[in-house]
Amino acid sequence: MRRARREVDVPALVEQARAGAPRAVARLITLVENADPALRDVMAALAPHTGRARIIGLTGSPGVGKSTTTTMLVTALRAQGKRVGVLAVDPSSPFSGGALLGDRIRMVDHALDPEVYIRSMASRGHLGGVSWATPQALRVLDAAGCDVVVIETVGVGQSEVEIAGLADTTVVLLAPGMGDGVQAAKAGILEVGDVFVVNKADRDGADATVREIRHMISLGDRTEPGLWRPPVVKTIADRGEGVEELLEALDKHLGHLEEHDELRARRERRAAREVEAIVLAELRSRMGDLSAGASLPDVAAQVAAGALDPYAAAERVLADLT
Amino acid sequence: MRRARREVDVPALVEQARAGAPRAVARLITLVENADPALRDVMAALAPHTGRARIIGLTGSPGVGKSTTTTMLVTALRAQGKRVGVLAVDPSSPFSGGALLGDRIRMVDHALDPEVYIRSMASRGHLGGVSWATPQALRVLDAAGCDVVVIETVGVGQSEVEIAGLADTTVVLLAPGMGDGVQAAKAGILEVGDVFVVNKADRDGADATVREIRHMISLGDRTEPGLWRPPVVKTIADRGEGVEELLEALDKHLGHLEEHDELRARRERRAAREVEAIVLAELRSRMGDLSAGASLPDVAAQVAAGALDPYAAAERVLADLT
Repeated sequence: MRRARREVDVPALVEQARAGAPRAVARLITLVENADPALRDVMAALAPHTGRARIIGLTGSPGVGKSTTTTMLVTALRAQGKRVGVLAVDPSSPFSGGALLGDRIRMVDHALDPEVYIRSMASRGHLGGVSWATPQALRVLDAAGCDVVVIETVGVGQSEVEIAGLADTTVVLLAPGMGDGVQAAKAGILEVGDVFVVNKADRDGADATVREIRHMISLGDRTEPGLWRPPVVKTIADRGEGVEELLEALDKHLGHLEEHDELRARRERRAAREVEAIVLAELRSRMGDLSAGASLPDVAAQVAAGALDPYAAAERVLADLT
Repeated sequence: MRRARREVDVPALVEQARAGAPRAVARLITLVENADPALRDVMAALAPHTGRARIIGLTGSPGVGKSTTTTMLVTALRAQGKRVGVLAVDPSSPFSGGALLGDRIRMVDHALDPEVYIRSMASRGHLGGVSWATPQALRVLDAAGCDVVVIETVGVGQSEVEIAGLADTTVVLLAPGMGDGVQAAKAGILEVGDVFVVNKADRDGADATVREIRHMISLGDRTEPGLWRPPVVKTIADRGEGVEELLEALDKHLGHLEEHDELRARRERRAAREVEAIVLAELRSRMGDLSAGASLPDVAAQVAAGALDPYAAAERVLADLT
């Protein structure tokens, strides 16, 4: 159920969000979720105030303890006086608002802290999905003065690769057993992890999992001199154990990025993807816009009938678009 | 390891594939996986011979028995004398060729049957991913004379929705227990399922799962007169039990689609997505093509620096493209 669209007072909202008003921040992210036309003005007003937040991606299979690890991280960052944003992205849910995630309930420790913004986003089917909405939501939290934003996402399908593309540092979470090493290799998360965490380290097999991950990392191309070699950290998130080691690993990685001018490069890649997603969403809409005489529906019927092949059809659509 | 690109004799390959030569079919699908430039000619040659195959999508969580169910279906369709294609799409794997899937081994029952084409595809990171490669692979199997093509994919993330968009009929597979009902609702697969199968029906809780799914279907909008109400079928795939009921449900759904002119509509939507994916891949390549003076990398640097907002940047890129 979507409420009727209200008139958006962009300058007022942006001012309140920049001052850190949680309701204004929440409202702006809702505009992102709804692909509201006011976003153009919002993003123009926010742009000069962005680029300060550090973005940490956190991904892992269901059940490894992503939510407790995020909570542990947020607690530690709050103890350092940092303002923190959490975006829980559920790429598998088609429901706007992410109500089924229940992250707002799970992160009850921080729900009343005005320096912590927690938001679930369900972005499937939403224009470009994760790649469209998430960077813009990040932008809102960044402009709202968050020192750190944690993007938490379940590591399935291609979502964790998209999330890794948004983050300065990507943390891959594993738990002992469950053949996680093989899973990691399969899902390609070995390639995206900057820091690996073996959570639930009090369980049997934790050291074996650490060894397995270290071994798989050593098989990669990462061991060349000057390249970052991802550390493997053990944690017991629900007791807060290992958080100092995790923070240290995160800081080391940030230092590495800065030292090699890689932070700027990553952020430019992120911006390129963000702009690309907006461009593609616009082009997609032009292609399918029947009222504007777009050619896609017409050629699609011919392709379905076997009268035209898909490349020839694509050429016609391109000629119309460009 | 990729072999050196060989010269492609398109007319010969197409002729052999149309005659049903398994090697030619495999070779054409490899061209799709590699986004080979020869595809343009291949698809032009195949187009007049497509549109005959019936496409069945089969999706479900890991462990519900997708592979055994596919095998059961293939056995039954072969008994009817049908030529069958199986595309096992793994959207989470970045490896071309899908070697890790092992479907070629799993489906050993049919591996030597010349009327059955089995192919694993790993399409992540491949231009538009599943949406780019899968329809073109389907097109190859269709032109090769397959009466039925089963697309099997693990139901995670957005992949099952993409697969549902390709299929005439989408089968959602569940197993007793595991809170599958809730999982189904979360992943949005209730909306995409045309036929539901509760596999492993000899296990405890099978009837409860059937009731739960029926209940959730009844909560949807599907009960209006004239709309298709998805049936729920029980199977024990590794014993072949329930396959007649499943085939009957599939045939009923096909009849329903034909009766309501929905088969043509679905196939036109599928063609539209296929063409769109080709167009978007081309536009994406033009946007990022540095050698052609594309504007994306340039504006991305300005966006990362906070000097330009993403919408203004997108407008510049669009102006350059169109």
